[in-house]
Amino acid sequence: MTILRVLTVGGEEFSVRRARRADVPDMVGLLADDPLGRDREGAEQSAYDAAFSEIDASEEQLLACLTASSGAVVGTLQLTFIRGLSRGGALRGQLEAVRVHRSCRDRGLGGLFIQWAIDECRARGCELVQLTSDRSRIDAHRFYERLGFVGSHRGLKLGLALS
Amino acid sequence: MTILRVLTVGGEEFSVRRARRADVPDMVGLLADDPLGRDREGAEQSAYDAAFSEIDASEEQLLACLTASSGAVVGTLQLTFIRGLSRGGALRGQLEAVRVHRSCRDRGLGGLFIQWAIDECRARGCELVQLTSDRSRIDAHRFYERLGFVGSHRGLKLGLALS
Repeated sequence: MTILRVLTVGGEEFSVRRARRADVPDMVGLLADDPLGRDREGAEQSAYDAAFSEIDASEEQLLACLTASSGAVVGTLQLTFIRGLSRGGALRGQLEAVRVHRSCRDRGLGGLFIQWAIDECRARGCELVQLTSDRSRIDAHRFYERLGFVGSHRGLKLGLALS
Repeated sequence: MTILRVLTVGGEEFSVRRARRADVPDMVGLLADDPLGRDREGAEQSAYDAAFSEIDASEEQLLACLTASSGAVVGTLQLTFIRGLSRGGALRGQLEAVRVHRSCRDRGLGGLFIQWAIDECRARGCELVQLTSDRSRIDAHRFYERLGFVGSHRGLKLGLALS
């Protein structure tokens, strides 16, 4: 199991690694433990497992886990690498579904986790890292702005009712 | 050459089809003919051709062209299909680099083009369509809101200096 980076916070070590199938329930737990995520999760485990297989098989995606020294999953984020024609045919890295367990917040761990993701995007040749964040997540916007992100865009979404 | 949809506006027919390599210069021209795009394009043709090859080879991407009955390329948009763990393992469709030639605007053509993209996302099983738009593009936000999009998010970006 390849450790992608070790993050040290207050003398405690955390590891970033590629997510494995066995991590899926813990990652879904992190996604659901959130004011907005709470109402969005709760599908069958098989739906999450199928999604994991598809993400894991894609060369354009990297689902990452953050683990404590105990092995417990305490964070997750998803990176998507999108080649475009615009900006001279640039590659962009997109962050989605970023979560750090509430027991591990306010210690700088999240910032180091995102910094790893930014470095991973740079290493793959991305010219841009982008994300959207719900307008209600004021603290998250400040967090990303401290890391250098600029809130230059509006994010618009359209839900599709599946038949 | 498969026509994905015929759009009729004021008695004139336009076609949506998958972009081909020969369309790249016209698509780049559309990307550059824009207040924000103007300063972003101008790379070597080989960079755009390489990007096209990568996009075209990806099963997670669909680069679309809108053509007039003359065959002229008058619009482009890029769709990326992103499987995630969140929202029950949902697939989302993402729109980037949407352009319609200035000679074809204000006739409802752009709305029909986006409606095709939404339908394509639905057909592939997406539960969500998303995009970001620069905060200065007020008219674009109104355009997307008329199509049902909700500006619920902030879009944050971080430029990476390539070494």
